[in-house]
Amino acid sequence: MARLRVGLAQINAVVGDLDGNAARIVAAYDAAAAEGCDLVVFPELTVTGYPPEDLLLKPAFVAAAGETIAKLASLTGDCAAVIGFPEQADDLYNSAAVCARGQVLGVYRKQLLPNYSVFDEQRYFKASTEIGPRFEIAGLSVAVSICEDAWEPGPIVAMAQSGADVVVNINASPYFAGRVRQRETMLAGRAVQTGVPIVYVNLVGGQDELVFDGASLVVDAGGAVVGRAKQFEEDLLVVELDPATGAAGRIEPVLDPVREVYEALVLGTRDYVRKNGFTDVLISLSGGVDSSLVAAIAVDALGAEHVNGVMLPSRYSSEGSVADAVALSERLGIRTYLVPIEPAQAAFEGMLAPVFEGRAPDVAEENLQARIRGNAVMTISNKFGWMVLSCGNKSEMATGYATLYGDMAGGFAVIKDVPKTLVYALCRDLNARVGHDVIPQAVIDKPPSAELRPDQKDTDSLPEYDVLDPIIEGYVEDDESVSQLIARGFDNELVRRVARMVDRNEYKRRQAPPGVRVSRKAFGKDRRPPITNRWPG
Amino acid sequence: MARLRVGLAQINAVVGDLDGNAARIVAAYDAAAAEGCDLVVFPELTVTGYPPEDLLLKPAFVAAAGETIAKLASLTGDCAAVIGFPEQADDLYNSAAVCARGQVLGVYRKQLLPNYSVFDEQRYFKASTEIGPRFEIAGLSVAVSICEDAWEPGPIVAMAQSGADVVVNINASPYFAGRVRQRETMLAGRAVQTGVPIVYVNLVGGQDELVFDGASLVVDAGGAVVGRAKQFEEDLLVVELDPATGAAGRIEPVLDPVREVYEALVLGTRDYVRKNGFTDVLISLSGGVDSSLVAAIAVDALGAEHVNGVMLPSRYSSEGSVADAVALSERLGIRTYLVPIEPAQAAFEGMLAPVFEGRAPDVAEENLQARIRGNAVMTISNKFGWMVLSCGNKSEMATGYATLYGDMAGGFAVIKDVPKTLVYALCRDLNARVGHDVIPQAVIDKPPSAELRPDQKDTDSLPEYDVLDPIIEGYVEDDESVSQLIARGFDNELVRRVARMVDRNEYKRRQAPPGVRVSRKAFGKDRRPPITNRWPG
Repeated sequence: MARLRVGLAQINAVVGDLDGNAARIVAAYDAAAAEGCDLVVFPELTVTGYPPEDLLLKPAFVAAAGETIAKLASLTGDCAAVIGFPEQADDLYNSAAVCARGQVLGVYRKQLLPNYSVFDEQRYFKASTEIGPRFEIAGLSVAVSICEDAWEPGPIVAMAQSGADVVVNINASPYFAGRVRQRETMLAGRAVQTGVPIVYVNLVGGQDELVFDGASLVVDAGGAVVGRAKQFEEDLLVVELDPATGAAGRIEPVLDPVREVYEALVLGTRDYVRKNGFTDVLISLSGGVDSSLVAAIAVDALGAEHVNGVMLPSRYSSEGSVADAVALSERLGIRTYLVPIEPAQAAFEGMLAPVFEGRAPDVAEENLQARIRGNAVMTISNKFGWMVLSCGNKSEMATGYATLYGDMAGGFAVIKDVPKTLVYALCRDLNARVGHDVIPQAVIDKPPSAELRPDQKDTDSLPEYDVLDPIIEGYVEDDESVSQLIARGFDNELVRRVARMVDRNEYKRRQAPPGVRVSRKAFGKDRRPPITNRWPG
Repeated sequence: MARLRVGLAQINAVVGDLDGNAARIVAAYDAAAAEGCDLVVFPELTVTGYPPEDLLLKPAFVAAAGETIAKLASLTGDCAAVIGFPEQADDLYNSAAVCARGQVLGVYRKQLLPNYSVFDEQRYFKASTEIGPRFEIAGLSVAVSICEDAWEPGPIVAMAQSGADVVVNINASPYFAGRVRQRETMLAGRAVQTGVPIVYVNLVGGQDELVFDGASLVVDAGGAVVGRAKQFEEDLLVVELDPATGAAGRIEPVLDPVREVYEALVLGTRDYVRKNGFTDVLISLSGGVDSSLVAAIAVDALGAEHVNGVMLPSRYSSEGSVADAVALSERLGIRTYLVPIEPAQAAFEGMLAPVFEGRAPDVAEENLQARIRGNAVMTISNKFGWMVLSCGNKSEMATGYATLYGDMAGGFAVIKDVPKTLVYALCRDLNARVGHDVIPQAVIDKPPSAELRPDQKDTDSLPEYDVLDPIIEGYVEDDESVSQLIARGFDNELVRRVARMVDRNEYKRRQAPPGVRVSRKAFGKDRRPPITNRWPG
């Protein structure tokens, strides 16, 4: 009976890096061939990285990607390779080339082009209506499909009906919390529906807002997971696939839900920093839980020696703020600087006194402090070439409880898609996992405060976070209306106030740095409301 | 012989303002009916404004838009009305309701959904494959189409073949330089091709980055423009249309190319400021040509009494800077403040001295000054509730010759899509038009400088703008490659350097405020490159 030895080459491709991606493909191909694979499968648009966005509008880029796939095909031997690339024919297609023995044996063109959420594939590609060729590999008939093709029954059912023994599905499937289980449930159902095993290969790595989480897998014809690659790491998973008798491969565990988010944040941060040519980062440490978590993530992403903290106390900072930041820094082993901002604050107040004559202090003076800090971290960043990581969480981004050009300043906003309640869970989970308080308990225990005026607390302006976060989830992630939220039992006045805050602060979010998407709807390309908008929610 | 008296109701709808838009529709309907119209035509998605973006993902919003169209239909009399709205049926459609005598007579669903450039219609809508109903109005058979439907031959040719005497085309067609002529050429061709007159109604007004320029028109069956509404203003144009003998209506002139851009900037600024609930703006006046032009535009948009200038000289500012800004302010009649930034600069230098010990001054100190100014304008903005207008031009946005959170700070970046060479042309045109130097000649004549270090000139870092701007146009607007630009005769090294600057500064542009699109490809939703990007161009 025919058996297929297949390698799932879960690589970390870099957008636009055609030569680098080709080298990554060749290395994984050689490793798979050395392990005796009949077939090695790479992710969607392997050659360009995903998503290449408007690079696809550049004819020279698309032409170069075509030349790269031809060169890669010429390097193949008996082991076949499925490699994703943008294919310029009568139109542009999101395609997979099947290559072996120095040639492109055939090409499959994606049929279902996602154009929702973070996806804009109809901006670039034409949808194919063909189920594509079958490939005889190791005595089995192999069909190829791409990502979205698996999420509707049509394409894979047609492939099975046309006689495929195995369906390959190549992906660039971005992470959000719980996504692995959703994928596996869908794939198991599709395998059972069609009676064919599915080889699902995902990209891994961070690209701007997105993290591709890997976790490539094989489901057998009965829907059982018979192989699973690592989450959040490059991997080459080899699975022996026998459609008649089943299959066997390494099965990596799925991380628990909170840990999974943490690892997504680590990978997203590491790749954004490094792929953009930076080695070191700078974090403004307030002694609060957000900046403490970001510092811990940065250390896991880049190593403590590449993480720099700066403490920027003002006249309103509590004693504990600097002490807590110092305690954190010592536990993480990172370098810190202390720059009290009083001189700049006093200078600005003097400069603006004639303009502000007769006006009482208000939120303008609070934002002024935050922007002095923003300026200080950016000036240090410019001087030393360190990327600033900003520390705003999703609850703040949603409500606009943040200062534009102040605490929002930075190259990457690590936890912008993490609600405050999840920030606490991540801190607790981290401390429990490492077995000691990396995040000092005092940081977790104290009431959140921006410390921009005497005795300020977040709850002066916002409801408690365990009340606020579910409203944000309903309004932002589920597009529930104000009326629906009230009908679900949330306080009428509170829901209206939160909806208004969310909508009125779109202008701020539009100027925020990118950050890692970990929810099913993040601010950024995932959610595109107008700024000018009179709909009351 | 049948004659159709048609009103082209070019209204300024506001996104999300269902009740307000309904009131605008009723007012224009009543005016058209009072003028004896048989038919009044409103723009695409009149009820919601355009583009409603992700509001369309909110079921409550779509439902409310449906209720609005039902209510509007109930108010109609004998005069028929074509009104654009999002229609929830088996899926969501971009539709036009034809209403009369209290009812919806029928609905047309858009067939061609643009999903390129600034358009994302396939994110929201399903494309119809039906040519839709004919409507008997004043003895003529009227077909309805929507925007993109006219840009391919299919839909309107089919409508003509099915017996339509007149085709209505409702639009939300965003402005860019030269767009009116392009539209009129296309529509004339389509009319000649099909032998039917076309009633083309466009939206007018600013919405975030976009300006809808109006200029609604009627072309007769011979392709002649027989009626044209105003550019950049609300208008109700009434045209007597007799398919047999021709037509007659008011024909407004088309503005000359430079003036057209100016009026687009004025309308885009006015609507962004006012539709977001602001009355006044604040501009940092450097004495340079960019901030001078922005101030002039703001005065035309909002009135001099609503425009505030602040001069923020540093130790490196030339004597002329403040004098030129004062001269400009006097000519414009705007209020100004003078806030020298030396105290803050000295304070920051002192605060950061221990951190920067042993390091020579460099671009960090230059950006520091720009960010002190950014902080000052934002603090004044927060205190008085004035929106900050930032003054960076497209040449600077392209090359990153601007400081994030510094001169880039603001709510709206008026001229971010205007290359420096066009900035000069706009200033000269303005002075010539008003007959005196609103923009002082000294401002136009002096070499551009950021004045962030002694004797700095833009040309220290950038080529001359008349060399730079065409390279940017090719690389950014036309997606030409480095090789293509070199083949066109541009200097090899210079093209590579410019391409690198454009690509490496995407992270800055991503955090820039929105601004008016006036070119065929603006930074913003019109151009979506990845930030993390190793393609060398």
